[in-house]
Amino acid sequence: MAIEASREAGGHGRIRLGMVGGGQGSFIGAVHRTAARIDDQFELTAGALASDSVRAKASAREFGIANDRAYSSFEEMAKAEAARPDGIEVVSIVTPNHLHGLVARAFLEAGIHVICDKPLTTTVAEAEELVELVRKTGKVFAVTYNYTGYPMVRQARAMVANGELGEIRLVQAEYLQDWLTERLEASGHKQAAWRTDPTRSGPGGCIGDIGTHAYNLACFVTGLQLDELLAQLSTFVSGRRLDDDVQILLKWKGGAKGMLWASQVAVGNENGLTLRVYGTKGGLEWVQENPNCLWFTRYGQPKQLLTRGGAGALVEAGRITRVPSGHPEGYLEGFATIYAEAARAIRAVQAGQAPDPAVIFPTVEDGLAGVKFIEAAVNSSASNGAWVRIR
Amino acid sequence: MAIEASREAGGHGRIRLGMVGGGQGSFIGAVHRTAARIDDQFELTAGALASDSVRAKASAREFGIANDRAYSSFEEMAKAEAARPDGIEVVSIVTPNHLHGLVARAFLEAGIHVICDKPLTTTVAEAEELVELVRKTGKVFAVTYNYTGYPMVRQARAMVANGELGEIRLVQAEYLQDWLTERLEASGHKQAAWRTDPTRSGPGGCIGDIGTHAYNLACFVTGLQLDELLAQLSTFVSGRRLDDDVQILLKWKGGAKGMLWASQVAVGNENGLTLRVYGTKGGLEWVQENPNCLWFTRYGQPKQLLTRGGAGALVEAGRITRVPSGHPEGYLEGFATIYAEAARAIRAVQAGQAPDPAVIFPTVEDGLAGVKFIEAAVNSSASNGAWVRIR
Amino acid sequence: MAIEASREAGGHGRIRLGMVGGGQGSFIGAVHRTAARIDDQFELTAGALASDSVRAKASAREFGIANDRAYSSFEEMAKAEAARPDGIEVVSIVTPNHLHGLVARAFLEAGIHVICDKPLTTTVAEAEELVELVRKTGKVFAVTYNYTGYPMVRQARAMVANGELGEIRLVQAEYLQDWLTERLEASGHKQAAWRTDPTRSGPGGCIGDIGTHAYNLACFVTGLQLDELLAQLSTFVSGRRLDDDVQILLKWKGGAKGMLWASQVAVGNENGLTLRVYGTKGGLEWVQENPNCLWFTRYGQPKQLLTRGGAGALVEAGRITRVPSGHPEGYLEGFATIYAEAARAIRAVQAGQAPDPAVIFPTVEDGLAGVKFIEAAVNSSASNGAWVRIR
Amino acid sequence: MAIEASREAGGHGRIRLGMVGGGQGSFIGAVHRTAARIDDQFELTAGALASDSVRAKASAREFGIANDRAYSSFEEMAKAEAARPDGIEVVSIVTPNHLHGLVARAFLEAGIHVICDKPLTTTVAEAEELVELVRKTGKVFAVTYNYTGYPMVRQARAMVANGELGEIRLVQAEYLQDWLTERLEASGHKQAAWRTDPTRSGPGGCIGDIGTHAYNLACFVTGLQLDELLAQLSTFVSGRRLDDDVQILLKWKGGAKGMLWASQVAVGNENGLTLRVYGTKGGLEWVQENPNCLWFTRYGQPKQLLTRGGAGALVEAGRITRVPSGHPEGYLEGFATIYAEAARAIRAVQAGQAPDPAVIFPTVEDGLAGVKFIEAAVNSSASNGAWVRIR
Repeated sequence: MAIEASREAGGHGRIRLGMVGGGQGSFIGAVHRTAARIDDQFELTAGALASDSVRAKASAREFGIANDRAYSSFEEMAKAEAARPDGIEVVSIVTPNHLHGLVARAFLEAGIHVICDKPLTTTVAEAEELVELVRKTGKVFAVTYNYTGYPMVRQARAMVANGELGEIRLVQAEYLQDWLTERLEASGHKQAAWRTDPTRSGPGGCIGDIGTHAYNLACFVTGLQLDELLAQLSTFVSGRRLDDDVQILLKWKGGAKGMLWASQVAVGNENGLTLRVYGTKGGLEWVQENPNCLWFTRYGQPKQLLTRGGAGALVEAGRITRVPSGHPEGYLEGFATIYAEAARAIRAVQAGQAPDPAVIFPTVEDGLAGVKFIEAAVNSSASNGAWVRIR
Repeated sequence: MAIEASREAGGHGRIRLGMVGGGQGSFIGAVHRTAARIDDQFELTAGALASDSVRAKASAREFGIANDRAYSSFEEMAKAEAARPDGIEVVSIVTPNHLHGLVARAFLEAGIHVICDKPLTTTVAEAEELVELVRKTGKVFAVTYNYTGYPMVRQARAMVANGELGEIRLVQAEYLQDWLTERLEASGHKQAAWRTDPTRSGPGGCIGDIGTHAYNLACFVTGLQLDELLAQLSTFVSGRRLDDDVQILLKWKGGAKGMLWASQVAVGNENGLTLRVYGTKGGLEWVQENPNCLWFTRYGQPKQLLTRGGAGALVEAGRITRVPSGHPEGYLEGFATIYAEAARAIRAVQAGQAPDPAVIFPTVEDGLAGVKFIEAAVNSSASNGAWVRIR
Repeated sequence: MAIEASREAGGHGRIRLGMVGGGQGSFIGAVHRTAARIDDQFELTAGALASDSVRAKASAREFGIANDRAYSSFEEMAKAEAARPDGIEVVSIVTPNHLHGLVARAFLEAGIHVICDKPLTTTVAEAEELVELVRKTGKVFAVTYNYTGYPMVRQARAMVANGELGEIRLVQAEYLQDWLTERLEASGHKQAAWRTDPTRSGPGGCIGDIGTHAYNLACFVTGLQLDELLAQLSTFVSGRRLDDDVQILLKWKGGAKGMLWASQVAVGNENGLTLRVYGTKGGLEWVQENPNCLWFTRYGQPKQLLTRGGAGALVEAGRITRVPSGHPEGYLEGFATIYAEAARAIRAVQAGQAPDPAVIFPTVEDGLAGVKFIEAAVNSSASNGAWVRIR
Repeated sequence: MAIEASREAGGHGRIRLGMVGGGQGSFIGAVHRTAARIDDQFELTAGALASDSVRAKASAREFGIANDRAYSSFEEMAKAEAARPDGIEVVSIVTPNHLHGLVARAFLEAGIHVICDKPLTTTVAEAEELVELVRKTGKVFAVTYNYTGYPMVRQARAMVANGELGEIRLVQAEYLQDWLTERLEASGHKQAAWRTDPTRSGPGGCIGDIGTHAYNLACFVTGLQLDELLAQLSTFVSGRRLDDDVQILLKWKGGAKGMLWASQVAVGNENGLTLRVYGTKGGLEWVQENPNCLWFTRYGQPKQLLTRGGAGALVEAGRITRVPSGHPEGYLEGFATIYAEAARAIRAVQAGQAPDPAVIFPTVEDGLAGVKFIEAAVNSSASNGAWVRIR
């Protein structure tokens, strides 16, 4: 069951990886670097880790990047790396949201594959341009909606696709945190500062930071497309510039309904991402904080606790499972799966082959869908909760 | 800690209880009778248990009611019992919803206290008339929103009232079942039949049967009043005449927000009533299927698992607790508490005293609030999800 | 599914019940009285509730017992009630352990059925005499090993009997509390005082108070008989006169093994009674603090969460279930089932019939087995952990 | 909070790592390799991955090891690597148990640090020789009792050391699996085959494979030393050559008591490693399958749910935590911590410094303690459950 790097398989060594953003003290940069290492498919070889040159060099040194490949400008990095015979093959973008689009464009145009954090961009227009550019360049573009990398999320998706739930009626998603219960951004907290700042975070606060994760998860598992939404965005903390709580009614194409609730002020919740799906024949429940299991009920039968690697685990879960059931995998392994899947896609492209159809990762189109969702929610809320159709 | 009937306290024997509805095969009638017995404050002495005379007599015999007090008409029962020196002091109404108002009126006018199942009536107008009549007659009127009888619900209410959560921001309520996933009412299932029949159930299906419980619980614990709601009611099962899923956005007076979801088609849920409340200082979570505990988090401190009768239990929980912590109390005990509280109120009225301020039970006004909630939700949904103000 | 008193069934009214012990302030007396009421089969009509005459009268008054049937001597009560045409038919014995045997003997000899708290007696010899006397008199004798009254315990027993687990290999039982973590008995706490006093509690402290419950549960569910045990009894609290922690290795007849752990000093545990049974084909886990469910795994299949009244519930669970699945039943309902079963047995004896084979309650023989278990554990521990064969 | 490789800190690049055992298809080899990568402190550069030369070469190629450093003999590898200027600095030993001692000796004598899987050896004598050799050579020697690498295990250890539990009274450990419920070793299952074969596994089956983990965990968290044990080892599966279930009574130095239960035939358990510790002032409970939390109760206060990285997390947990609370870390991260700690120790030795006192990993002495435990349990069981003193 254990999966492992197999460089022979593709006839390659590690894929050369660059990183933009993610210097010392960054939370998500460290996550991406660890995720890239876990399955041994990447070697971090270049970076524009900070815009300040001294910090960029120091960060690079700490992460084992050679001094001459420690850039302070992503444009310069894209150009220089594209020109090197041993230049990076893929770049990870872990900057604040407002830069995602610009950076991604620079590397795509330089012929370099992209792994980009979410949300894809801060406007739908910019996201649509990226979609276009990816199509034109044929590059691999993965968006780190990382929760899709959990084996039991893949299991859930496969069960829905296999018809185990029948026709889907209800899709309920939640993502609850409490770290912004007080005005943390006023105290110099770096993460809080940019995430509540519309110039860096975009028009959505909680909706863009975590609501979009819940939405992506719901789409990923059910395969449904959203038709309309109606949103109530709130800013509970006085002086905050973006929403910190999001409540949304959902109408899915085909007739399913649902609700999505995301909050950063729900005291007692850490990363309470939960998905519940109910159909005519069965129901599923998954909780990120205990990700190695999946509750499944066939109507009229006892509830089952499916476990990663346990009885009833499907091949879709098994192929991304590393250790036996009962030994928990966590957030980093799920994140690593996005990297491992991207590596498989990159190697396929490099070999001029179509990727294995089993390979799944969130694409630039999924990224665009996320930005449309944010925009629609912001607009609906601004209209006192009008139904807004997803374009 | 154990509470027990103390007839000496009030200087009385058991209170003479009648019942309307609840004949053989009724679910809720048996629940009421057991609840009435648990704390030994009542003796069932008369009943109009069925409209069919033979079934009424047979049911009465089974439940130990004398033959001459086994009625087949509630009007006749109200009149006859009021005329007897040993007539009933209080009546329990456990008929389908559409009869609640008529029956209640008959007994109130006969000078008899009332314990009535929920929802109070099927129209706001009828509910308002009952409120008026209760005020005029001075009779005790309890509505069996029974979940308010769980000790940890009382604990939650007291903690909110004591300011442990600070200012309330979020109130999320759920009540999930799956027993109507298929068209059970078409198969002759008695419970399903009347609950999905607008002539007996009123304008709400799921919203009236369980949504109103979730709403009452949210109001009871937080002490908040609802300002506006916006509802999406669905009927997923083809041929069903009332809603079987309810999704509602809530705006509470004072600025709190929330969502309420009730469903009877969420496969894998039995009686998943859950309340979550978050404020500026803390958060609370309570789950009916495991009712003897309450999760509480003070912002910035570890989550606590409070237990009924355990450390941290307040007097408000303790006074309705029967057995030590770790020995679960359940649905019937919570229901019994409504009866025990009603008994205390009835004895106080009989003694010409004000009831102990610690005595709490859902009143006719709470019943009216429930009917208003149902009406508003039905209206909002009929307007494709317009915000509707609660009158 | 709801069960209810049906006096017609047996052609009788309520069974006349007396009580010895259990006066004001007693925990277990109140539990017995409530349990007796829940299914409406008994009416408390006489009592020797305390040895002090004033307290006996006051307690009787509080519980609705007529003054002339409020005794202060159980011998007098047995004699007087036996002589009355409306005398009690059954007596509940809720005194400290050392009196159980004496009281039971008095009532059996007076021709009165007995419901007795556990452990049956403080010596094996006395227990054997009671077994003999019950056989001779033909009276119903129930011992309130109340956990056998939980529906999911009956479910577990039925599943083992039906072979769902295959051949049993492992039986692990625990009963953990923390209320005696400090020397509570030194502070005048009545419950702690007698339970740690060998003259009233017998030779076992924790082993007799809760270890015997765990043992009874293990035997009840598995149907196995114990062959040998090896015990390590500890007294952790300085000055305490009886054990407060019990650790036992078990060898069951037929080859199964197991462990039993009971503690009253395990900080953070309230009434943590747990049973785990594993066989060649499946495994079961049940936890008293969440008694409405039962974990079941067939080897090689996903774990199932069986619920009281839910899918997969067997008739053995269903016949003692009162409310639908998802509405928890608790400790008092489980206790009430012992009373309801005893009532069925008493009515059968009174009718000169054999009781329905479905009727199950812990018998005087089960009580004897519990006393033998206590004695063997005390002896093994006194021999520094020698294997002791159960006689 | 995120920790990351910082090669600057020690003035070094990655530590050159070799591996003995762990070729294609090995479970634990893949785990060690991933664990070594997670914090980016190691580069796998040599291996004797299999004794068969073809398989050894193929495995090396797959894992990115140069062909000339792909050995088929560990003796040859030790010699050759010691002679290279760029030879490995540390070796990981992931062979079956019977080879641990031989391989470790070869590398220690070649001046190479060792990371060795558990149990350390199959005899106490051999383990004692290794202890001696480590003392003589001054090399770092880590034994992968990997559960000590979970942050909340470190938290538990720190809380006990800080006196939060008072004086320890009870230490209960369990490790439950079900994968050997049937005679898997007869079907050619490689893992099952060697683990049930005394010539490769040593004298203990279940006791050596998982019982020793539970024992190490108990010692690690409590800091207690075992005084005596009394064991009941069973072989439930017919034809099996080693124990598959282990039940042990424990007497700890200083007066604490406890039980240890390990099983490989407990149907429904995957890797159910649980530790419960109770003292005069508090209690702790930790479960490996949900490793990011820790239950803690101060006597007389509500139970708390401490989370990795959450409120109440101590520095001892924080220093080995990688991602924020609510984002689960799992088995591989815990395992990686053993490698990260070993790296810190190796760098300190290489720099001629004492390691930071905060650095903790299971040592060769802990390995010896594990072997003594196995031997004592086997001996006790062979004597029908005699108390055996730990030497």
